[in-house]
Amino acid sequence: MTNEFQSPLLEAAVTELSRLPGIGRKTALRLALHILRRDETEGVTLGEAIINLRRNIRYCSVCHNISETEVCPTCSDPRRDRTTVCVVENVKDVMSIERTGQFDGLYHVLGGLISPMDGIGPEQIELDSLIKRVRAGGVAEIILALSATMEGETTGFYIYRRLQDMPVKITQLARGMAVGNEIEYTDELTLGSSLTNRTLFSDSFAG
Amino acid sequence: MTNEFQSPLLEAAVTELSRLPGIGRKTALRLALHILRRDETEGVTLGEAIINLRRNIRYCSVCHNISETEVCPTCSDPRRDRTTVCVVENVKDVMSIERTGQFDGLYHVLGGLISPMDGIGPEQIELDSLIKRVRAGGVAEIILALSATMEGETTGFYIYRRLQDMPVKITQLARGMAVGNEIEYTDELTLGSSLTNRTLFSDSFAG
Repeated sequence: MTNEFQSPLLEAAVTELSRLPGIGRKTALRLALHILRRDETEGVTLGEAIINLRRNIRYCSVCHNISETEVCPTCSDPRRDRTTVCVVENVKDVMSIERTGQFDGLYHVLGGLISPMDGIGPEQIELDSLIKRVRAGGVAEIILALSATMEGETTGFYIYRRLQDMPVKITQLARGMAVGNEIEYTDELTLGSSLTNRTLFSDSFAG
Repeated sequence: MTNEFQSPLLEAAVTELSRLPGIGRKTALRLALHILRRDETEGVTLGEAIINLRRNIRYCSVCHNISETEVCPTCSDPRRDRTTVCVVENVKDVMSIERTGQFDGLYHVLGGLISPMDGIGPEQIELDSLIKRVRAGGVAEIILALSATMEGETTGFYIYRRLQDMPVKITQLARGMAVGNEIEYTDELTLGSSLTNRTLFSDSFAG
């Protein structure tokens, strides 16, 4: 097998690259040969960026988002509204919500969703720390920004049950038609939801 | 922009990963988050493999294939037939031919094909070193294993012209139907080629 790649160094790089999701040995070889063709600095910078990422990233002790400091920049930003906490599954969801520019509160990253099928219970994700955060006071609203899937619903319901007796408002993202979608192709559950939760037309253009 | 990724380390890794061919920023983010989820050793090993690959690989001084030594294992293997040299475009082609198990000669890796369209002339690829190798003597046959494209044909013809007065046999890969292909779907150039160069039927099963 080693001879297949003409070089143990190439073989090692291909093997490691092919551990990445969606990258088979053929793609890994193409990437490795690309790295070989480019400047040495480019390859070394890539390698170092990966090592630095894995070695130096930590998780914020408040919201569990990735961070390079004990408390992440969002949690320590005095301009953010500390009374509203948006609960999300993962780091990517934080990025998606930040990109909307519509939210100026804090986050709580669960690091997963409750999924009995995959053996993930409430104790495997950052739920206790969320309850503790609410109990510590100062949080007026918890926004459940979880996927509209079975796991998302289960997790949302679990959080609701744990928090329902505390003086905190629990909301969730609106369910409805996606912008740009046609009624004809919207499923009936979504359509039903968007009917029930219809909003004032004037709100869509009023400042 | 930095805030999009919540962390400069993540941003750096995504930027470097997305320089790879076929990897956009979305895929790069997915890869980076995957690396974060896995063991630290796995990420560090990947980074080091890339750095080692780029820093320590050299090119064989004889055949210009990748190598970790001055002369590559193939060129220094006493069991290989030194009188036959197979000329290929790149490292991947060496691997493809090695995989057939049908060739026990040496290689010459051009590192590209003549392509006036892309501004690649004969002096940009390892052509002079090929001529020098033949002139040094000991080579009885040059096999042109180049792609059946305009660039491959041009490069082959150029090599032929430079070597035609030397005592060396110049051959090229047979053009014909691919194994498994149907006549109905074979283009007429290929079909014509495979007619002209028809082989003895008995050769296909005789030892």
